[in-house]
Amino acid sequence: MDVVFSPQQMNHHPSTYISRGRVVPNPERPDRAETLLGAVRGLGLPVVAPRRFGRALYAQVHDAGYLDFLEHGHRQWQTLPNASAEIVPNVHPNGRMNGRPQHIVGLAGLYMADTACPIGAQTWESAGASADAAATAARLVVEGAPSAYALCRPPGHHAYADMAGGFCYLNNVAIAAAVLRSRFARVAILDVDVHHGNGTQGIFYRRADVFFASLHADPAAYYPWYVGFADERGEGPGIGSNLNLPLAHGTGDDGVLAALDTAIRAIRAAQPAALAVSLGLDMSADDPLGVIKVTPQGFARMGQAAASLGLPTVLVQEGGYMSPALGGNLASFLAGFGATRGAA
Amino acid sequence: MDVVFSPQQMNHHPSTYISRGRVVPNPERPDRAETLLGAVRGLGLPVVAPRRFGRALYAQVHDAGYLDFLEHGHRQWQTLPNASAEIVPNVHPNGRMNGRPQHIVGLAGLYMADTACPIGAQTWESAGASADAAATAARLVVEGAPSAYALCRPPGHHAYADMAGGFCYLNNVAIAAAVLRSRFARVAILDVDVHHGNGTQGIFYRRADVFFASLHADPAAYYPWYVGFADERGEGPGIGSNLNLPLAHGTGDDGVLAALDTAIRAIRAAQPAALAVSLGLDMSADDPLGVIKVTPQGFARMGQAAASLGLPTVLVQEGGYMSPALGGNLASFLAGFGATRGAA
Repeated sequence: MDVVFSPQQMNHHPSTYISRGRVVPNPERPDRAETLLGAVRGLGLPVVAPRRFGRALYAQVHDAGYLDFLEHGHRQWQTLPNASAEIVPNVHPNGRMNGRPQHIVGLAGLYMADTACPIGAQTWESAGASADAAATAARLVVEGAPSAYALCRPPGHHAYADMAGGFCYLNNVAIAAAVLRSRFARVAILDVDVHHGNGTQGIFYRRADVFFASLHADPAAYYPWYVGFADERGEGPGIGSNLNLPLAHGTGDDGVLAALDTAIRAIRAAQPAALAVSLGLDMSADDPLGVIKVTPQGFARMGQAAASLGLPTVLVQEGGYMSPALGGNLASFLAGFGATRGAA
Repeated sequence: MDVVFSPQQMNHHPSTYISRGRVVPNPERPDRAETLLGAVRGLGLPVVAPRRFGRALYAQVHDAGYLDFLEHGHRQWQTLPNASAEIVPNVHPNGRMNGRPQHIVGLAGLYMADTACPIGAQTWESAGASADAAATAARLVVEGAPSAYALCRPPGHHAYADMAGGFCYLNNVAIAAAVLRSRFARVAILDVDVHHGNGTQGIFYRRADVFFASLHADPAAYYPWYVGFADERGEGPGIGSNLNLPLAHGTGDDGVLAALDTAIRAIRAAQPAALAVSLGLDMSADDPLGVIKVTPQGFARMGQAAASLGLPTVLVQEGGYMSPALGGNLASFLAGFGATRGAA
């Protein structure tokens, strides 16, 4: 199984973000990618560079104004007196506020959901390289590979069509799904990151051709707070194509695997021709941001479960933060998925 | 003309807020009130203490869940590991996010529009005292006084029924209008703060009994960014009862007075029986946050214009930040309004 990755993905490097009213170190660090790369190299998997796709592909799932903001906003922000090095929003169009500002501070609040997606001078380049990695992995599957792994960083599943959020800028798995749709009539996305894949859900919420299932910590007490509840089933043509399985905080391997089994059965019932997995590793018991207690053995079982669908599959890296277990958890999932068989 | 003020209003004292990605000094400082108090004492106006109203009155314009959050949220926030001293939101229910979290971080984003309304241990007490000052001034007018001035601090006009924002927690002028409505069938609110009175607009947007007119710097390039545009005219029964007059940045006395004349004519046409003025002084050329260029003489003309309506009037202090001109600008407005005549 090929691994797709570009060193350009490392150039985005915001050192801080704002959490609970404080400026704190940003855990979505470039060395996450180094650790994950070490794990796939340890499995003997070949690493290939992404092909270049660019805005025309991203625009299949993203709003043009938002892409303009991501590409050019930081230059405007730099002209603001007394502003931080990276774009961070401080006011949002909550509630009954529907006007369209022209000023960069207003645009930041419009196009950024929270203070955890700072945009620096290299963000557009790295987010684009990460999206291209996802698209390339999907192209490999479209071209006949049984599976491919996109080592995406920055991650993507919190990015809406028109909004960054939670360390995410371009929705890599949604872009991968768009590529898969060029060959496969119906696609499923399985999101096992500890945080609900709210951006992905938002992008496909009214569509029947992309089935979305997400396992995640209960948002009543966890990011993204306002979305990811079990009663969100899709809208319009998408009704029934969205499945949220919130997990009680502290859930261990067996509880997670039981929920994953529910998701797998729902995906099978939806009869997709291909699968994209939003592969967060932050359900780990060792994750610094996580609240779920998955062991390395649990990740191997999760990989087996995903493989049991027997579908052409793109694995897209999402979250999972620095701990001594991070690389081993990826290796466990990939081994469970059977990735190492194809590498022989 | 009586001035209503309580020293309890000084106890709220967040030292910082987050703007443009940085933690910066908070300009909504208690010494604003000292300066304004010095100005009214200089005019020889009597200062009286507010009567105690409390939640039953605030609930006439505010949501019960929001009042619970304001009153009790800080105690929950204090139990969070690694949190700031005051509540500051970092994620909001933007866009397609309609769930209801239970956790204090989620509630903060639900009930706070931005990072400029930090909530500390004394915020509820001071915001309540400020709202009581506005309500007391309105009661004095209901009881027959031709006018009264509530020296409100913290200010109120950015607070929605269910959302703090921009240094505001309880919407003092909306609470004053509610008290005026106990006697007067129709009330007008004139907002001359440099920032659009978005909370006040939101509270009365569907009501015909409270006419709202606001002069303010164009929100296309200024807080509150997403609201305050000229095409917002009210909804349902409130259609035609909302008038926004955005001003180009840099507008001076004559431009402001021309817009104020438009507002005064619209208020006269609405035939209210009483008036509440959201009296911001941050249109001053000397204001550290302002972008409009009103001189002390301009403030006197604004006071004359408000008085020209000949209505029972409550003046409610809103913004206006520390500069050598702050106290003098209040004195100019009050002198133009004719406040000093009644003090003889």
